[in-house]
Amino acid sequence: MALWGRSSYRLLNWRACRSIRKYCSASSNAPDLTKNRYNVKRGNYAELSPDDLATFEGIVGKNRILIDATEVESYNIDFLKSVRGYSRVVLKPKTTQEVSEILKYCNKRKIAVCPQGGNTGLVGGSVPVFDEIVLSMQAMNKIEAIDGVSGIVVCQAGSILEQLEEKVHEQGLCMPLDLGAKGSCHIGGNVSTNAGGLRLLRYGNLHGSVLGVEVVKADGTILDLMSNFKKDNTGYHLKHLFIGSEGTLGIVTKVAIFCPAASKAINLAFLGLENYENVMKTFLMAKQQLGEILSSCEMIDAESLECSTKPFNHPSPIADYPFYMLIETSGSRVEHDEEKLHDFLNCAMDSGIVLDGTTTNDSKKMKDIWFLRERIAPGIIQDGFCFKYDISLPLKQFYDIIPAVKKRVGRLATRVCGYGHIGDSNLHLNVSCPEFTQEIYKLLEPFVYEFTSDLKGSISAEHGIGFLKPSYLKYSKSPEALDLMREMKAVLDPNGILNPYKVLPRNS
Amino acid sequence: MALWGRSSYRLLNWRACRSIRKYCSASSNAPDLTKNRYNVKRGNYAELSPDDLATFEGIVGKNRILIDATEVESYNIDFLKSVRGYSRVVLKPKTTQEVSEILKYCNKRKIAVCPQGGNTGLVGGSVPVFDEIVLSMQAMNKIEAIDGVSGIVVCQAGSILEQLEEKVHEQGLCMPLDLGAKGSCHIGGNVSTNAGGLRLLRYGNLHGSVLGVEVVKADGTILDLMSNFKKDNTGYHLKHLFIGSEGTLGIVTKVAIFCPAASKAINLAFLGLENYENVMKTFLMAKQQLGEILSSCEMIDAESLECSTKPFNHPSPIADYPFYMLIETSGSRVEHDEEKLHDFLNCAMDSGIVLDGTTTNDSKKMKDIWFLRERIAPGIIQDGFCFKYDISLPLKQFYDIIPAVKKRVGRLATRVCGYGHIGDSNLHLNVSCPEFTQEIYKLLEPFVYEFTSDLKGSISAEHGIGFLKPSYLKYSKSPEALDLMREMKAVLDPNGILNPYKVLPRNS
Repeated sequence: MALWGRSSYRLLNWRACRSIRKYCSASSNAPDLTKNRYNVKRGNYAELSPDDLATFEGIVGKNRILIDATEVESYNIDFLKSVRGYSRVVLKPKTTQEVSEILKYCNKRKIAVCPQGGNTGLVGGSVPVFDEIVLSMQAMNKIEAIDGVSGIVVCQAGSILEQLEEKVHEQGLCMPLDLGAKGSCHIGGNVSTNAGGLRLLRYGNLHGSVLGVEVVKADGTILDLMSNFKKDNTGYHLKHLFIGSEGTLGIVTKVAIFCPAASKAINLAFLGLENYENVMKTFLMAKQQLGEILSSCEMIDAESLECSTKPFNHPSPIADYPFYMLIETSGSRVEHDEEKLHDFLNCAMDSGIVLDGTTTNDSKKMKDIWFLRERIAPGIIQDGFCFKYDISLPLKQFYDIIPAVKKRVGRLATRVCGYGHIGDSNLHLNVSCPEFTQEIYKLLEPFVYEFTSDLKGSISAEHGIGFLKPSYLKYSKSPEALDLMREMKAVLDPNGILNPYKVLPRNS
Repeated sequence: MALWGRSSYRLLNWRACRSIRKYCSASSNAPDLTKNRYNVKRGNYAELSPDDLATFEGIVGKNRILIDATEVESYNIDFLKSVRGYSRVVLKPKTTQEVSEILKYCNKRKIAVCPQGGNTGLVGGSVPVFDEIVLSMQAMNKIEAIDGVSGIVVCQAGSILEQLEEKVHEQGLCMPLDLGAKGSCHIGGNVSTNAGGLRLLRYGNLHGSVLGVEVVKADGTILDLMSNFKKDNTGYHLKHLFIGSEGTLGIVTKVAIFCPAASKAINLAFLGLENYENVMKTFLMAKQQLGEILSSCEMIDAESLECSTKPFNHPSPIADYPFYMLIETSGSRVEHDEEKLHDFLNCAMDSGIVLDGTTTNDSKKMKDIWFLRERIAPGIIQDGFCFKYDISLPLKQFYDIIPAVKKRVGRLATRVCGYGHIGDSNLHLNVSCPEFTQEIYKLLEPFVYEFTSDLKGSISAEHGIGFLKPSYLKYSKSPEALDLMREMKAVLDPNGILNPYKVLPRNS
C-alpha cells in the first residue's frame, strides 16, 4: 500500500465555490432564460401587482422581502447555470404560520410559487421558470430539539445539513445523510427531493429516516405529520407524499429525523484500479468482508478525478489509475474495524483487483480524500456547461454507458466521465462542453434515458425530476403511475401554484 | 452467567398453534359477530347474487372459489377471536390479472371486498366485518427472482415470510423483517400493514426496504410501481401510499424488497433484571457498546414470559426475575462479535444492572430462546380473550402504563402484562380475561389511548388501525391529516369497496 505522504492541500469548500459561482452567474456568465432555451409556455398565473407586494411585506416584514433585481438574481439561477427564471420577488418567512399565510394568499390569487432551499439542486427544480415568487426557506433554520438518547432531531426546514451534522455530533449522533452540497443544502430540500448521497448504503434513504414532517399545503393548511417515534402505524403514511415530490405537493416546514449514533471508529481507503470489472469485484468483496461497517463505497473514473484535483490544485494521494474507489468504514470499535479493513485490503491487493491504495483514520486526511469526491461536481462546471445524468443501473452494465456516450458525442464534449455511489448502483454520468448547444443536447437526450430504460434502470436515482426531466419520466414510470401522480397533484394543489413546470410531464 | 443447561423443549410452532386455534374458533369458541359486538351499520354495498358467484367462478375457476360455509368460516374470524364477519365466499386469485378482473367487477357492482393475507393481523383488519367477499392471496405465492448479488427479491404478495426467509438464506441473504407470525403471514400483508417486528432496530422499516410494489386499484387498474434499485427518484413516491394503508387504497399483488446479507455470526443473550429502570439502562448500554451489530433488543416482563412457558411446557433457561431481555447481535465476524457481546455483558453484570443471563450461538438454542418471545402472543389467548395494545412511548415512561392499567381494571383482568421492542420504543400491552365484556372494554378504551396521547406516543406502533382502532386515530392524527386520508381514499377507491369499515374513522 502507498503511504499517505502529501500534505497541506489548499482547501476550498463547497460554500466558497458556490459564492464564486453565484458572483459569476449573476454577472457575466448567466445562462439564457429558461423560457427561451427550453421553449416553455407560461401558465395562466396572476402577474404580481403592487398590492401583492404590499401583502407579502405585511406578512414577512420589510427585512425579509427582496425586490431589488441584483439581490433577487442569484435566486433565479441554478447551481449548474442550466436554467434561469426572472422572478421579481423573494420572500423569506421565519415561521410556518407565515408560510401558511403566503400560500393561502397566493392560492386565492393564483400566484405561482417556487419554494427554494439551498438552491443546490441539479435538475432545475429550485429556481423559477418564469416569474414565480421565490419562497426561500433560509430564515427557517431553527434546530428545535436534539435528543441524544432517542437519536431524534427536530428542526425547521431551512436548517443547513452541515450545521445539523455539527450539532448532532455534539450529542454523539450523526445525520443519516451526507452529500457534497452539505455546506449549503437545507434539510427541507433534502427531504423534498429525497436526497441520497454518501451514506445511503449504510443508513438507507430518507423514507426510512424521516420520522415526521410538517407541511403547508397549497391552500395554506398546515399539516402536522410530525412524530417522535420510529414506529407509528396510525393510518396512511402521508409524510411520504412530501418526501421526494420536490415541493410540488406542499412545502415542508419542519422535519423530525432519526440520527444513528456517531461511529467511534471511521476509516477511509482510497484505491487505484485497472478497469471497471475490478471496481465491481472490489465492491462485492467489500460488501462481504466489511459487512455491517461498510458505510460508503464510491467509484471515480480518471476523468472525474481530474475535475477535483486540477481546478482546486488538490493532488491525489496515489498515482494515476483508470479507476479509483473510496471505501469508508464506520463502526463502534477501532481495533475490530481496522482488522476487518486491513484483511479486506490485503485480500483485494493479493488477488490483484486493487493495484494501489492508501488508508487513513486521521480526520483531516479523511476530509481531504472526501474532497476528491465531493469537488467533482463543482469542478466540472469549470469546463463551461455540464449535462448531468444521475441514473441507477445494474452493476454488470454500470459503466457501459460512458464509452457509449463518448462515441456518440465525440469531440462536441470537453469531457465524458462517470463517478458515483456504486454501492447503491447509482452512476453520475457527466458530459461537459464549453457551452450549452442544441446539437449536443439532442445527441444526449433522449439517448441516455433510452439506454437506461433498456437496462430497466432509473432515469433519476437521487437528483429528482425538477424542470429538466419531466418529459423523460415516461422511461421510468408507467402511464397508470403518471395518472396517479396527476391525481395527487389535483388533490393537493388544485390551482397548480406550487413549483409549476416541475416533476409532472408538461402538455398533459 | 448461568450456563445453557436445559434441553429438549417440546417445540410447537406458530403454524401449529394457528391450526389448533382455527379449529377451536370454527367450532365451539367463535366470537360474537362483529356487527353485534361493536354495533356497526352495514354500508350500502350490493348483496351477492348467483350471477356474481358465476362471474367470480369464471375468473378464478372452480377450484379457487370457496362457498361451503365450513370452509369459509375460518376466513371470517381473526387470530385473536375478537372479530367475526359472515362472508359467504372466498376467492383465491393466482395472478394479478385475476385480481384486476375481480376488482373491476366488484367496483362496477359495488360489492365490498376484504383482502386477506395470512390472517395474522391483530386489529381485525384482515377479516370481513359483514359479508364482504374475501380475496385471499394464498394462491399468489410465487417467488419470481432472488438476486444474491444485488440482494433484491421479487415475489407475489401471498409468499409466506418464513418461506421467503429460507429461500433468500440459500443465496446468503436475510429478509429485513422477522416476526412471530412468520410461519403464516404473507409478505403482501406485511407490506400492506407496514409490519415492524424483531429486526426493525437493525434494518429499519418497510418504507426503506421495499423497493417496489405492484398494486391493483379498486377499479381494477394495475399499477406497476416496481423497481429493482435502492435509489429511484422519478416522480412521486407512490408506493408508500400502499405501505401501511391496510388494503384500503389498493391490493398489493407483487413486491420487490431489498434483503441485506445474512450475518455470518449471530449471538443471542437472554437476561434477567430487577426492574424497568435497569432494562432501559441495559438497552442504552447495548446500543453504545454493541453499536452496528445490535440486531434486536426485546423486553419481556414476568407475566408475559409465563404465557410462553406454561402453556407450551417450555421452561425458561434462567431463574425467575421481574424482567427479561433478549438481545441479539448479527455481524460479519464471529470473534469480533463475541468479544463485543462478552465485554458488554461483563460490563452490565459488573455494574449490577443485569442479574443473570445466558448466551448462545447455537441455532437450535437460539430458536428456543426466540420461542420464548414469539409464543407470548399465541400463549396469552389461552386465557380466553385478550385486549392487545401496541404503542410507541418515550423510553423513560415506557413501562408506566402497566401498573396504571393494572390498577384500573383490577380483578376483571386475568393478566396485565407488557413486552415488546424496547429498542424501537414499542410496547405491547396485553390485558387478558376469560371473555370479552363491555365492562373491561370500557375501562380500557379510551383510557389506554389517552394515556399514550398524553405522552405524545403513537396509539399503534406496528399493528395498524384495522377495524378495532379507527375511532382512536384522532389521538395520533390531526384533523387535517384525517381529512387528507379521506381525500386519498376518495381518489383511489371512490366507491369505498376496499376493506370497508377499516382504518378510516367511521361516521365521518
